[in-house]
Amino acid sequence: MSTLIPVELPKAYRLLNHGPTVMVSSAHDGAVNLMSAAWSMPLDFEPPKVAVVIDRNTLTRGLVEGSGEFVLNVPSSEQAALTVAVGSASGRDVDKFAEHGIRTLPARVVKAPLVDGCLAWLECRVIPEPHIEATYDLFLAEVVAAWADPAVFADGHWKDNQGGRRSIHYIAGGQFFETGPAVEVEK
Amino acid sequence: MSTLIPVELPKAYRLLNHGPTVMVSSAHDGAVNLMSAAWSMPLDFEPPKVAVVIDRNTLTRGLVEGSGEFVLNVPSSEQAALTVAVGSASGRDVDKFAEHGIRTLPARVVKAPLVDGCLAWLECRVIPEPHIEATYDLFLAEVVAAWADPAVFADGHWKDNQGGRRSIHYIAGGQFFETGPAVEVEK
Repeated sequence: MSTLIPVELPKAYRLLNHGPTVMVSSAHDGAVNLMSAAWSMPLDFEPPKVAVVIDRNTLTRGLVEGSGEFVLNVPSSEQAALTVAVGSASGRDVDKFAEHGIRTLPARVVKAPLVDGCLAWLECRVIPEPHIEATYDLFLAEVVAAWADPAVFADGHWKDNQGGRRSIHYIAGGQFFETGPAVEVEK
Repeated sequence: MSTLIPVELPKAYRLLNHGPTVMVSSAHDGAVNLMSAAWSMPLDFEPPKVAVVIDRNTLTRGLVEGSGEFVLNVPSSEQAALTVAVGSASGRDVDKFAEHGIRTLPARVVKAPLVDGCLAWLECRVIPEPHIEATYDLFLAEVVAAWADPAVFADGHWKDNQGGRRSIHYIAGGQFFETGPAVEVEK
């Protein structure tokens, strides 16, 4: 199972700042689900907030609306096929965790699980904004706990080359870019 | 100067889907400015919409509020230093275009300019949502025209290895990741 260490909340935006595709886990009233989301971003530093698009036709949408919580899981390139798979099927038709043998770890604050094998995890509590949720499928949330695999992110920084693993950035049609080499600019 | 070709609007999200850092250009009432934004994402496919965070303390904020328009410019890794520079100074203190010798091309629909040398450009018209603008500095917009350098993106697809150039993904402290190699999953 993944080893994970807490990420201090003012640094949590760095897990998402480079725009990786995420998997959104959610749980409510005995049901649990996992979907992919290419459309998420940080929204604030402290307290850290995020924005994510959760389509109205997904099972996840009901679980997030019911619980007011979700987890953004940052998958590795080894999980690219899984990321496509859980983004293609509906949790109404299949138990994705059983279907794909997805192992989970408990979150600390929210009920939604953390997906084993990811690079990082952000536990989120929805900031209710009914108008933009209904109009744009856009959810805003506060990050209430954050975790990372210490082999890839520690002390508030990504390790060189993300510790030899890589986050992924969805394009379309099953195609991603991996996160590439570092570029440093003198400030 | 950049060669650019139109991107059909239903494919415009692909310019932003992998989460690159952008530069936001804006113009209003004789003033023009350019700032960087790590926090932007697609919000819908058709009509294409985007979300972007524009801090209330920036000059850009006033220009966007005044004009209801902006351009998201997708910079290349050669522009990483420029992206940090225009994200660090305020347009109230310096004419960033003169200071950095930034050349521009006219947009087709909006007044804000396109920054020469970028990989892609999205002309955007703000969808007024005063509550989330005021509360979260979050702006939603419709993409009303989109362009790409045909050496990097054509026929609705990124070229292999982005044509040998690379978009960039900001982390913090002057550090970016470049967009890396493609990963393809059988769908």
